[in-house]
Amino acid sequence: FGKIGTNVGKVVDRIMNLARDDPRRVIHSFKVALALTFVSLIYYIRPLYDGFGVAGIWAVLTVVVIFEFTVGGTLCKGINRGIATFSAGGLGLGANYIASHLGKEGEPVFLAFLVFLLAAVSTFIRFFPHIKRRYDYGVLIFILTFSMVAVSGYRVEKIIELANQRLFTIIIGGATCMVVSLFLCPVWAGEDLHKLIALNMEKLASFLEGFGDEYFKLHEEESSRDDDACSKNKLLFLHGYKSVLNSKASEESLANFAWWEPGHGKFKFSHPWKLYLKTGVLIRQCAYHIEALNGYLNTDVQVQSEFHKRIAEPCMKMSSESGKALKELASSLRAMKRPSTVSTHIKNCEAAISDLRVALEASSPDRADIVEIIPSIAVGSLL
Amino acid sequence: FGKIGTNVGKVVDRIMNLARDDPRRVIHSFKVALALTFVSLIYYIRPLYDGFGVAGIWAVLTVVVIFEFTVGGTLCKGINRGIATFSAGGLGLGANYIASHLGKEGEPVFLAFLVFLLAAVSTFIRFFPHIKRRYDYGVLIFILTFSMVAVSGYRVEKIIELANQRLFTIIIGGATCMVVSLFLCPVWAGEDLHKLIALNMEKLASFLEGFGDEYFKLHEEESSRDDDACSKNKLLFLHGYKSVLNSKASEESLANFAWWEPGHGKFKFSHPWKLYLKTGVLIRQCAYHIEALNGYLNTDVQVQSEFHKRIAEPCMKMSSESGKALKELASSLRAMKRPSTVSTHIKNCEAAISDLRVALEASSPDRADIVEIIPSIAVGSLL
Repeated sequence: FGKIGTNVGKVVDRIMNLARDDPRRVIHSFKVALALTFVSLIYYIRPLYDGFGVAGIWAVLTVVVIFEFTVGGTLCKGINRGIATFSAGGLGLGANYIASHLGKEGEPVFLAFLVFLLAAVSTFIRFFPHIKRRYDYGVLIFILTFSMVAVSGYRVEKIIELANQRLFTIIIGGATCMVVSLFLCPVWAGEDLHKLIALNMEKLASFLEGFGDEYFKLHEEESSRDDDACSKNKLLFLHGYKSVLNSKASEESLANFAWWEPGHGKFKFSHPWKLYLKTGVLIRQCAYHIEALNGYLNTDVQVQSEFHKRIAEPCMKMSSESGKALKELASSLRAMKRPSTVSTHIKNCEAAISDLRVALEASSPDRADIVEIIPSIAVGSLL
Repeated sequence: FGKIGTNVGKVVDRIMNLARDDPRRVIHSFKVALALTFVSLIYYIRPLYDGFGVAGIWAVLTVVVIFEFTVGGTLCKGINRGIATFSAGGLGLGANYIASHLGKEGEPVFLAFLVFLLAAVSTFIRFFPHIKRRYDYGVLIFILTFSMVAVSGYRVEKIIELANQRLFTIIIGGATCMVVSLFLCPVWAGEDLHKLIALNMEKLASFLEGFGDEYFKLHEEESSRDDDACSKNKLLFLHGYKSVLNSKASEESLANFAWWEPGHGKFKFSHPWKLYLKTGVLIRQCAYHIEALNGYLNTDVQVQSEFHKRIAEPCMKMSSESGKALKELASSLRAMKRPSTVSTHIKNCEAAISDLRVALEASSPDRADIVEIIPSIAVGSLL
C-alpha cells in the first residue's frame, strides 16, 4: 500500500515539474477546455441548435484538432483547414453536379474514379518538402473534404445545405480557436524562437567562459581538488551546451509557425525568421567544435607542463573573451539592440590569438595529432 | 509563353526527382487512393448503405487521417484511434446516462463541466514526453470522441445506435488501412531505421577513409592540383557525413513507429529498437568530431613540413583503418551477422596510434592549441 503511495507521489511530482517548467502549459490546457465548452454551447442553446443541427459537431471537431500550443500553430492549422474545406467542398459539389448528369451507372463510377485520382495526387503532393512544411494539414483536409462531399453527395439529397452548415460550423470552431489563442495569454512561436536562439548563444558563452579556467586549472591543480561539489556543479553548468547540438528540429518548427503569426510586441509581421535559422546553424556548428573541446575536459592527458603553461594564458583569455563576446551578442539579441562592447571583446580575443601564435612559434606545433586520435577513440567506443 | 514552359518543365523535373528518390512514395499514393475508394464503396453499394447510413462517412475520415507512409505509423495511429474511440465513447455514454437523471437544468451544466474538465486534463497529459511520443494521437481522439458523444447525446435520441454505427465504421476504415499498408508493398519503419543507421556509419567511414589521403596529400602536393574536377568530386563525397549531424529527429520517429510493427523479415517483434537509437547517438558524437576534423581540410595552415611528414603515415593509417572498421561494421549490421575482420582493423588502428605516440614523443606536443583556435574562428564567423 505504501508502494502505491510513493508511486502516486512520483506521478504528482512529475506533473508538478511539468507545470513548473512552463506554466503556460497549464494555461493552454484551460484555453482548450474553454474553447471546447464554448462551441458545445451550439448544442445546448435551442435556437442555435435549430440553425445548425447535427452539423454543430464539426465545430467541436475543429476545435479539438486545430488548437495548438502556439499562436502560429493554431493559425497555420486554422487557415489551412478553412481554405482546404472551402475549395474541396466547392470542387466536390461541382463533381457531384457533373456526375448527376451521367446516369445511374456512370455516377458512382465517375465519383469513385475522381476520389481515387485526387487522393493519389494529393498524397503524393504531401511529399514535397515545401508543401509538407507549411501546407501539409491543408492538403490532408482537402482530400478528406473532397472525398466526403463527393461520396455523401451520392446519397444525401440536400447536399448544398449540408455543406453550407458544415462550412459555417467549421468557421465558427476555427474562429473560436484563433480568438482564444490570440487574445488569451498568447504563446508566440516567434518569441519562443527568439528566446531559444538567445539562450543557445548564452549556453555556448558560459561554456567558453568556464572552459579556459576549468581546463587549465584542472591540470595545474590536479591534486588540490577539495571543492568537489563545487566543481561538479560547475561541470553541470558546462554541459548546458549539449542541448544546443540537437536544437535543429525545434528551431525549424518554431520558425514555421512564426511565419504564420501577425506582428506582436517587438516583432513586425514579416520579421526575418529565416535569419534566425541561419544563426541557429552557425550556433550549432560552434557547438560541434565545443563538443570536440569538451572531450579534453574528461581525458587525462599528460601534458608537458612547461609548454602547457606557456599557452595557458592566451588560451584562457581567448576562451573567456569569445565567451563574453557571445554573451554580449545574446543579450543584445534579447533586447534587439545593436551590440556595443562586442568589438572590444573581439579585439581582446584577436590579441590573445596573436599572443598564442607567438607562444607557438617557440615550439614545434603538431596540428593534426590529437584531433586524429579523437575519432578513433569514438570508433573504439563504438565497437 | 516560353517562360511558362520552362516553369512547367521545372515542376515536372522536381516531381520526377521526388519519385525517383524513393519510388515507394508513388506506391504509397496509390495505396491511399485504393483504401479510400474501397471504403467509399460503403456508400455506393445499397445494402451496405442501408446498414450504416450516414455514419459511413467516418470510414472515409478514418482512412484519410490514419494512413501513414510506414506500417508502424499506420498501426500506431490506427490502434490509438480504435482504443481511444472505444473508451471515450463508453465514457461519453456513461456520462450521458448519469446526466439524464439530473433533470432539465442539471444535464447541460453537468455535461459542459465534464467536457471542460476532461479537455483540460487530456490537453495537459499530452505534454508528457512519453505520452507525446507514443499516444499523442490517441489522447487527441479521446477528447474528440468524448466531447462529441457527450455533446450530441444531449440532442440525439438514438445515441447508442449512432455510437455503434460510428465505432463499426471506424473499425472498418482502420482495418482497411492496416491491411493495405501491411500486405501491399509494406514500408517498414524498422527496416528504414536499420538502413539509415548502417548508411550513416558508411558515410562516416568513407569520410575517414578519404580524410587521411585528402589532408596529408593536400599539403604535400599543394602545387600539383591538376585534377581539380576529381578533387571536387572527392570533396563532395567527404561531405556526406553532414547529414548525419542532424539525423536525430528522423531516427527517433522511425524508432517510435518501429515499436508498433509486428515481426517482419529479419526483425522479430520485440527487436531492440532502442539500441539503434543508442548507436545513433554514438554515431552522431563521432560525426561531431569529424565536423571538427573537417575544418582542417579547408584552412590553409602553414605546417612545419618535417614534423608533418613524421606524423603523416600513422595518421593516415589510423584514419583509413578506423574507416575500414566502420565500413565492416556497417556491412555486418546490414547483413545482421557478427563482424569478422573488424578486430584486425582495430588492431591495425591501435598499432598506428602507438606509432603516432612514438613519433610524437620526439617532438613537444601542444595538445590544446589548435582545438582552442577553432571555436574562436567559429565565433569570429558568427559575429
